Amino acid sequence: MLEKTTRMNYLYDFYQSLLTPKQRSYMSLYYLDDYSLGEIAEEYEVSRQAVYDNIKRTEAMLEEYEEKLLLFQKFQERKKLIKKLREIAARNQFQDEEFLKTIEALEKLE
Amino acid sequence: MLEKTTRMNYLYDFYQSLLTPKQRSYMSLYYLDDYSLGEIAEEYEVSRQAVYDNIKRTEAMLEEYEEKLLLFQKFQERKKLIKKLREIAARNQFQDEEFLKTIEALEKLE
Repeated sequence: MLEKTTRMNYLYDFYQSLLTPKQRSYMSLYYLDDYSLGEIAEEYEVSRQAVYDNIKRTEAMLEEYEEKLLLFQKFQERKKLIKKLREIAARNQFQDEEFLKTIEALEKLE
Repeated sequence: MLEKTTRMNYLYDFYQSLLTPKQRSYMSLYYLDDYSLGEIAEEYEVSRQAVYDNIKRTEAMLEEYEEKLLLFQKFQERKKLIKKLREIAARNQFQDEEFLKTIEALEKLE
């Protein structure tokens, strides 16, 4: 379950711009702020079932976007490679300041 | 015009998985294979205007996706940073083989 939450957090992060405002609200309350379905339902004055259905649909949409665009997968692969670059540089005592700053900039681009 | 073609080629590359099969066919004939609107119309037995409208709508969709996801923009920024990493390494005579291979893998991830 924790693993699913982490994955959804990432997918939400990558694809939230493609969701509707309502989908964004529900997802961010549920996954980022840890609200229960009942609490979200109360907040928006809708049924718990309606919130549940909306969140399930949104999760499926996020997985579909990931299947098509692979942003999360590529992010993870890039992260590994950048870590490796750092390690190789460190192992070889190559610690040029501009180099390390550029690596950092690359990491922040995600 | 050449600039627009290049941009559309890139946007198409990044977001084609989000388009319908028909949109993909028209765009790839027009932008990658350099067909004219008339030739595409003939191929699909539709009016030239229909092809034109479809391509215009698809172009707008691609720009909208780019506005939301910035994949092309980030790709360009990453490319610059990777080039810089290579230059810094070369300038410092740091040419470790594993390092260069990892940089290459990073480039290919796009």
